[in-house]
Amino acid sequence: MSDSGNNTFQLVLMPSGRRGAVPRGTNLLDACRSLGVELESICGGRQTCGKCQVIVEVGQFAKHAITSGAGHLSPIAGVEAAYLEKNGISGRRLACAAEVTGDLLISVPEESQARKQIIAKAATERAIVVHPAVRLVYVESAEATMGDPRGDWERLEDALAEQWKLHGLSIDLRALRTLQGSLRSPAARQAAGGRGLTLALWRDREVIRIEPGYAEGAHGLAVDVGSTTVVAHLCDLRTGAVLATEAAMNPQVRYGEDLMSRVSYGMTEPQGVERMHRAVIRTIQELAEKATAAIGRTPEALLDAVLVGNTVMQHLFLGLDPLELGGAPFAPASSSSYDLKARNLGLTFHPAAQLHVLPCIAGHVGADHVAVLLAEAPHQRAEMSLVIDVGTNAEISLGNRQEVLCASSPTGPAFEGAQITHGQRAAPGAIERVRIDPKTLEPRYRVIGWDGWVEPEAGPPMPEAARATGICGSGIIEIVAEMFLAGILSSDGRIQEAATRRSGRVRWNGRTGEYQLAGPNETATGKEIVVTQNDVRAIQLAKAALYAGVKLLMAHRGVQGVDRISLAGAFGSYIDPLHAMVLGMIPDCDLSRVAAVGNAAGDGARLALLSEEQRAEATRLAGWVRHVQTATEPAFQTEFVAAMAIPHASDPFPHLEAVLAARPADEVTAPGPRRRAKSTRSRGQHGG
Amino acid sequence: MSDSGNNTFQLVLMPSGRRGAVPRGTNLLDACRSLGVELESICGGRQTCGKCQVIVEVGQFAKHAITSGAGHLSPIAGVEAAYLEKNGISGRRLACAAEVTGDLLISVPEESQARKQIIAKAATERAIVVHPAVRLVYVESAEATMGDPRGDWERLEDALAEQWKLHGLSIDLRALRTLQGSLRSPAARQAAGGRGLTLALWRDREVIRIEPGYAEGAHGLAVDVGSTTVVAHLCDLRTGAVLATEAAMNPQVRYGEDLMSRVSYGMTEPQGVERMHRAVIRTIQELAEKATAAIGRTPEALLDAVLVGNTVMQHLFLGLDPLELGGAPFAPASSSSYDLKARNLGLTFHPAAQLHVLPCIAGHVGADHVAVLLAEAPHQRAEMSLVIDVGTNAEISLGNRQEVLCASSPTGPAFEGAQITHGQRAAPGAIERVRIDPKTLEPRYRVIGWDGWVEPEAGPPMPEAARATGICGSGIIEIVAEMFLAGILSSDGRIQEAATRRSGRVRWNGRTGEYQLAGPNETATGKEIVVTQNDVRAIQLAKAALYAGVKLLMAHRGVQGVDRISLAGAFGSYIDPLHAMVLGMIPDCDLSRVAAVGNAAGDGARLALLSEEQRAEATRLAGWVRHVQTATEPAFQTEFVAAMAIPHASDPFPHLEAVLAARPADEVTAPGPRRRAKSTRSRGQHGG
Repeated sequence: MSDSGNNTFQLVLMPSGRRGAVPRGTNLLDACRSLGVELESICGGRQTCGKCQVIVEVGQFAKHAITSGAGHLSPIAGVEAAYLEKNGISGRRLACAAEVTGDLLISVPEESQARKQIIAKAATERAIVVHPAVRLVYVESAEATMGDPRGDWERLEDALAEQWKLHGLSIDLRALRTLQGSLRSPAARQAAGGRGLTLALWRDREVIRIEPGYAEGAHGLAVDVGSTTVVAHLCDLRTGAVLATEAAMNPQVRYGEDLMSRVSYGMTEPQGVERMHRAVIRTIQELAEKATAAIGRTPEALLDAVLVGNTVMQHLFLGLDPLELGGAPFAPASSSSYDLKARNLGLTFHPAAQLHVLPCIAGHVGADHVAVLLAEAPHQRAEMSLVIDVGTNAEISLGNRQEVLCASSPTGPAFEGAQITHGQRAAPGAIERVRIDPKTLEPRYRVIGWDGWVEPEAGPPMPEAARATGICGSGIIEIVAEMFLAGILSSDGRIQEAATRRSGRVRWNGRTGEYQLAGPNETATGKEIVVTQNDVRAIQLAKAALYAGVKLLMAHRGVQGVDRISLAGAFGSYIDPLHAMVLGMIPDCDLSRVAAVGNAAGDGARLALLSEEQRAEATRLAGWVRHVQTATEPAFQTEFVAAMAIPHASDPFPHLEAVLAARPADEVTAPGPRRRAKSTRSRGQHGG
Repeated sequence: MSDSGNNTFQLVLMPSGRRGAVPRGTNLLDACRSLGVELESICGGRQTCGKCQVIVEVGQFAKHAITSGAGHLSPIAGVEAAYLEKNGISGRRLACAAEVTGDLLISVPEESQARKQIIAKAATERAIVVHPAVRLVYVESAEATMGDPRGDWERLEDALAEQWKLHGLSIDLRALRTLQGSLRSPAARQAAGGRGLTLALWRDREVIRIEPGYAEGAHGLAVDVGSTTVVAHLCDLRTGAVLATEAAMNPQVRYGEDLMSRVSYGMTEPQGVERMHRAVIRTIQELAEKATAAIGRTPEALLDAVLVGNTVMQHLFLGLDPLELGGAPFAPASSSSYDLKARNLGLTFHPAAQLHVLPCIAGHVGADHVAVLLAEAPHQRAEMSLVIDVGTNAEISLGNRQEVLCASSPTGPAFEGAQITHGQRAAPGAIERVRIDPKTLEPRYRVIGWDGWVEPEAGPPMPEAARATGICGSGIIEIVAEMFLAGILSSDGRIQEAATRRSGRVRWNGRTGEYQLAGPNETATGKEIVVTQNDVRAIQLAKAALYAGVKLLMAHRGVQGVDRISLAGAFGSYIDPLHAMVLGMIPDCDLSRVAAVGNAAGDGARLALLSEEQRAEATRLAGWVRHVQTATEPAFQTEFVAAMAIPHASDPFPHLEAVLAARPADEVTAPGPRRRAKSTRSRGQHGG
């Protein structure tokens, strides 16, 4: 296949399969680029960084042993030979050091491919190209001379233009302060051309860090600031790898459990906003310290960060007063994405580190939901997708690539264990899963911190760790659904007086009933844990609000059902989809297409940290997704009333009915291992 | 002259004389703009700010009494009538409120003209158009509604686009934090359209301050950081007026009198750079406090600032290590202009205030010299101009609009009183002017702090304030020149033994002589003040370095002489041009064209503060002015040796000779009132 005149040669690149002819003597790095295969390179072709390694499969397209490509590539020598020997590498070449002298079949290992892919940890995995806002480049600057009156920065600007085709950059003062010291240092002096530096560039617009000589390591932090929990992922900005994940309680909880109490704390308490702002910033700083310590670094290693949160959280971490979010028309101060220096929030990362805040959609649909959409990408699917992030408010998105609508539904704090007689936050001692025997009405449950089902009055006295302290959100959903399946509750949510005759667990006080989940001997408090009629009503109100929001979006979108459902958020991760559907929290759907997707907001923040395109996509989405104001819709009330019934006053649930009909009589009461989404936070820290 | 169909009318605008036809009903503000006369307007035509007032000279081009233009302009009514009445204005209209209904002759008062002019306080006055980087605009933002999910900032962006044609602005977080509170405030609510705000915009790119309702007042600070003195001018950014000027000693003096000792302090002392950085920043902050207090404000009123200094000062106020400036090749960290937030230097101005640093030309020709060039503008003249800023180094520029060259000459600290037996800084007690009677060789002198010439041993005992403590720079120059004129010194600078026979003031110790300027009874110390042969040598060395630098530039520029000389800097302001020329510090020139121009660096900083065009001009100049390295020129040594003679070994001084020949015999000894340049600093604070 080689050119008869032997002046151009065929090059085939695997695994992409790209091929083409290149002239004799072409640099292999350039040759790959000309065929559309971009190789990694920090040093810009100086045989220093070793990032552009390729495997020379063969010099003549026959699949035999790895060779050095002798005769088809210029021989290994000089800097390349030293590099390969020093690093114990054989069977590979540095593309930047080799010239094409014959036909070649080249394998590009994944680690040498520029624009690596990361996988979005969504229900359906998607690959995202790593293209962070901050990247490293190695550059060699000219020596200062008496004949050149310019500053060292101006010489560096010229080097960036010449060596990287980068023009018009600025330099952060904190980086400028280190420029001359870096140029003087021995590491810089060792560079072949002298005065070698590794620069960290933000969006190819600003130099934010200068290191002497050739250096690696660029890190970023993706942070999801939830009302209850703050989660931070430490990422390698070059590879996209998550190097550490840390989570902590949101310290603002002490100023108010739910968002509206924090807004009112900010309104009534002098310095309240400032206090909540500082508290959450301190927590982010602590997470940064822990996460970087886990890889033996300090927060100074952090060059970039992405923060997401609901609009109230976002106002508070930016130091903005959330007052306006406390009442109609719920206007945020700003809904656009926002770039600033991390230091301007009081974060002690690298002194010139950047920080990016994703846009929000509306006063009640914040950047965290935009991040969830980035991760779940309903806008990229043909199927009708429903994405729900449940908290004090539920953010709901519905749609597909034609159009996505979103809304916020006022579910209230019942799903978080508030307003429930024995409700509590998910923490050791909380009942998180429940089964009721449909015949005996005896309960079994799981307690956070105890590994196994607790069966009351079965066997020896209860060990301390198995003693319950209350019921958390996922437990409440299951118990109400189980009470309904066991016939303790009617479809309208009333505890049936008739059930008192089936078991002593169901009690009647004249007008309403209650169900005893645990007796005084089984709890840590020595007091029984019951579910009252009011508790059931609170859950009905919450689930009806959620369902009515979904129905309104379906009406606006003109669809009768959905193809898939993603339950996002820590709470969503612990909800059993079957019970959620039995309760009528979510509409009917093929149960195999209902997935708990974990901390999707954190995943979306990570995507935005690692990809400028994802940041642009977030901005596009925030403008493109159509926000529907459920509160002002007259139909909301009608939908809400119909959704009070369990599962619903009129909507059919054919998929659910098929599942319930097909299962063995005892399946619900004896479930297999629980399907639990991978969660990045420990069980004791989630909000469910 | 009116249009026959009465549908277009003739409009003449004074004092510009612009004229043209406009259709009936044209808004007068728009009409002026269409004829190329831009009127001021903060409110954007809402009859609120009153900045667009015009005088209706007449409605039919006849020069009679001021009228309201009845019949030729729409009648006064509504908001305009209220505004005029409230402010007691008659005979004027708000252009934004009036419509053209007939032929008109309109006078635009200076205060109504946009782009006012300020006068550059240079040797030759020049007018500079006020066009600051920060300006105020009044804008009315739409109310948030339930149907509009955007943030208040996004609505404000729309208002800026609609009402001011401004697009793509960003907003500083510190400003964003005040947005919603400003929108809620009563002042904003009073606006006709509701939600009126006055924004301060930096370069029409970033919102840096938000004030509710219509507001005025935008202030900036121009600062010249000299090695000895820091001077700050507080300016009104709209009118260009200097509202206050404050000066203080540069506190870095305690770390080293001259630049190189500060560089070495930074090299040898841990935290030395940081300490010097903080000290000068603290001083700038104090000057800002004093200057704003003088107009009843605080530094928070400051929205913009320009800082200039020589390269060492510039490094230190930016917190950059000046180490590299201590040795060849004297590379600054950066030679470009630099924009940053004042807060990033630790300055507590407005939290989002900007700060601009002018570019420098080379390691020894800093932004202060660029500022001097802005003020003196040799590049705009046809004449061959020499601009000298004397300090430890003299910065010299020579040229005209074809080309300007610059250099730095190592004059050493002798001109500042160092290395002189009885030298001292200019402060009360310092001898600043000297005359020697050519016949008797008796001196007369002036002492800073005493108003009159001191004649030794004449009259009653010397009052305390008239007693000298030493000689400052301007005094040293005069005394050496006077010693030469009186024949005490030969042209090669040697004290003449023969002179001892003419007066007891001249003394001989066997090999060298000295001159007694003041006896023990006339000084504050009780010890005599003398000028030694070594003192004369030190002055010769300094003046020869300066002159040689000038000669080298003349050679590079290919000229034999100069048309005008500007002596810049506080020291330059106090040098008597005649004595400087007698000494051979400056080349021969028509003495009426030699001017002391005061703190030209501070004036240049003020121009840059008030004009974006001047900032651009500074950047252009820094690149355009050709820097000549005198230190590496072989010819420098030859020129230096020839310049040691007084005034020079070979150069003719025809202008000087003519002046000396024409004057009455006693003119030098009995000068009239001293020509003193207006100086913005008190006498006790200058560096001369």
